[in-house]
Amino acid sequence: MSARAQQAIDWCRRLATLSEDPACTTRTFLSPPMHEVHRLLGEWMRSFGMQVSVDAAGNLRGVLQGRSPRILIGSHLDTVPDAGAFDGILGVVLGIALAGIASGRGDRPTIEVIGFSEEEGVRYGVPFIGSRALVGTLDAATILIAEPEIRSFGLDPRLIPDARFSADTAAYVEFHIEQGPVLESLQLPLGIVDAIAGQSRMTVTFEGQANHAGTTPMALRRDALTAAAAWILEVERYATAHAGLVATVGRVDVTPNATNVVPGCVKASLDVRHRCDEIRLTAVRELTGSFKHCVQHLDQPAVPMDEGLRARLANAVEACGYPVHHLTSGAGHDAMIVAPHIPSCMLFLRSPGGVSHSPLEAVLVDDVEAALRVGENFLGRL
Amino acid sequence: MSARAQQAIDWCRRLATLSEDPACTTRTFLSPPMHEVHRLLGEWMRSFGMQVSVDAAGNLRGVLQGRSPRILIGSHLDTVPDAGAFDGILGVVLGIALAGIASGRGDRPTIEVIGFSEEEGVRYGVPFIGSRALVGTLDAATILIAEPEIRSFGLDPRLIPDARFSADTAAYVEFHIEQGPVLESLQLPLGIVDAIAGQSRMTVTFEGQANHAGTTPMALRRDALTAAAAWILEVERYATAHAGLVATVGRVDVTPNATNVVPGCVKASLDVRHRCDEIRLTAVRELTGSFKHCVQHLDQPAVPMDEGLRARLANAVEACGYPVHHLTSGAGHDAMIVAPHIPSCMLFLRSPGGVSHSPLEAVLVDDVEAALRVGENFLGRL
Repeated sequence: MSARAQQAIDWCRRLATLSEDPACTTRTFLSPPMHEVHRLLGEWMRSFGMQVSVDAAGNLRGVLQGRSPRILIGSHLDTVPDAGAFDGILGVVLGIALAGIASGRGDRPTIEVIGFSEEEGVRYGVPFIGSRALVGTLDAATILIAEPEIRSFGLDPRLIPDARFSADTAAYVEFHIEQGPVLESLQLPLGIVDAIAGQSRMTVTFEGQANHAGTTPMALRRDALTAAAAWILEVERYATAHAGLVATVGRVDVTPNATNVVPGCVKASLDVRHRCDEIRLTAVRELTGSFKHCVQHLDQPAVPMDEGLRARLANAVEACGYPVHHLTSGAGHDAMIVAPHIPSCMLFLRSPGGVSHSPLEAVLVDDVEAALRVGENFLGRL
Repeated sequence: MSARAQQAIDWCRRLATLSEDPACTTRTFLSPPMHEVHRLLGEWMRSFGMQVSVDAAGNLRGVLQGRSPRILIGSHLDTVPDAGAFDGILGVVLGIALAGIASGRGDRPTIEVIGFSEEEGVRYGVPFIGSRALVGTLDAATILIAEPEIRSFGLDPRLIPDARFSADTAAYVEFHIEQGPVLESLQLPLGIVDAIAGQSRMTVTFEGQANHAGTTPMALRRDALTAAAAWILEVERYATAHAGLVATVGRVDVTPNATNVVPGCVKASLDVRHRCDEIRLTAVRELTGSFKHCVQHLDQPAVPMDEGLRARLANAVEACGYPVHHLTSGAGHDAMIVAPHIPSCMLFLRSPGGVSHSPLEAVLVDDVEAALRVGENFLGRL
């Protein structure tokens, strides 16, 4: 039974060799290796009787005709620089594998598999180009920026409105590696995403007074870094005390950042995420409310997954004999873009070591088999 | 009486216009503007009957003949980039002014004023070239590095051994701005340096695990930055609790330093200074002893000033009606290099705002007058 799971992994590993950089896996929006990715996946789709096309936003789309309504299964084909072999593309490969399984059955819904052209935001610093084209929310400015790559890939950006999802689409399903350590720490193969966490990003500035490290006594200092250090610990304490909250100071820029100068200024980033927007916004207020110099860069609400689909996914997991576990996705995914337009759900596969965005990214063959079993069972319930 | 003090300040301001950079004061080792500095100071020296020369290390030397032994008064002529007008050169200008005052008196010691060519270490990353040439400890490697600038200034590096101080030299005196806020905070014009603090410099590495800021729950993180933050606060707490100790984390380099990634590695600098080496070394041991990854870059012992000269300086300060205050120099000075070879002492002038290494660097005319009075009285005691 695990031959098909092993085949899915082999597919991912083979696709990971298609890269802009021969030394590692790097595949940004409509870069040259994407042609070969489309060719290989399209060939595989056709072998199951699917109709294959590439829309004007560069999304690869394969349709297996069946009864209405249509079920959309997808994830993204692009990668971060020096990526692993599974982030994104595993969801497309599993979609094709599930279409292949369904192709042998008479009574089946129409299944459309979509490989999004762009999710990571590496090419232009703007993420989700593929899924935003699908739901009709891709803005004119991004289209203008992306136009040269779209045209040189042989596509016509004026046709992007035609990339919109078919009106008979009833559900969007995304399989994705967790990219975190939660399922591994619980020894679970699969997790049902209840929501994609909302996210706040800010920069806090600590203004002190730069001074000579030798000539300024401790009592006469205004050290911006010790002030920042106390706050960094408070951020950690606060997040640890509130279930489900993650708060991260990931970036710290010290001025002048010299061994023998008391730091005069520190700029520190804050990233706060939670599935409940109120808890997130309260955290941001309590952690940054007292600062004069605090700039907000992002305030993105949480996106819940569809309750009906989540329940069906839970039933499928249970029916296949796996433990049911719900978890929040701390990372953004295409499902976040699609969910406001099409009822959506996500199934996470365990990430060994919690590793992602790294060549060390992996999946276990038994977990891929579990995802295929659950996917097949789930499609039967729609 | 303060006309002579105002003149000394005017001299410093005029010399500050001699710069490699027309927009600010920057004058490194034997750079072209140093010719004009030598010419102006030499002219002034000669007006008091001093014999003027430039030694092979580029030090400007002026000798006012008198009875033996010889008293050396000096400081440095070079600056940091975008410097103020007083760091270093004020000590040379005050030396010339004191020689001028002494020149009108029959009974006087031989006074040699020295303007060191290099103290800051900006040109080659190697400080104290001038004073090390004076005491004969300038190493061959540094001479080799500096040779092109020495030759193009019209000097012969083979004659550097001749730059050594005269055998009849009994004392070295250095006037210098404090470059710190202590005298200002005590509302004192002058301070007698008891020692130049010893100094340790280290780099401590905190190894954690870089992880996705959204997908890694707080309990499963190994955040290198929160570990570093706790240590930064401990460094501050420890130094504050030990009188006279300064300990600074001035530089922090976070990897990968990205908003949405839990920091995987932090390298932090530690600078510890105290006039007592044992207290400094104990502090270093207690603050870094438990770290696996800790590299020491500097372990420089404290240099005490000569007790006899300090006592005479204190008597002179008292005789002139100023409060006597002893303090430790947290910064290095030429006196640190000279003291092991010639009995040395230093007198600090208050730094308004504690500011130095900045165009905002200043001195008060009354404080300069105080230094001249004390200097004159002090020379009479030798």
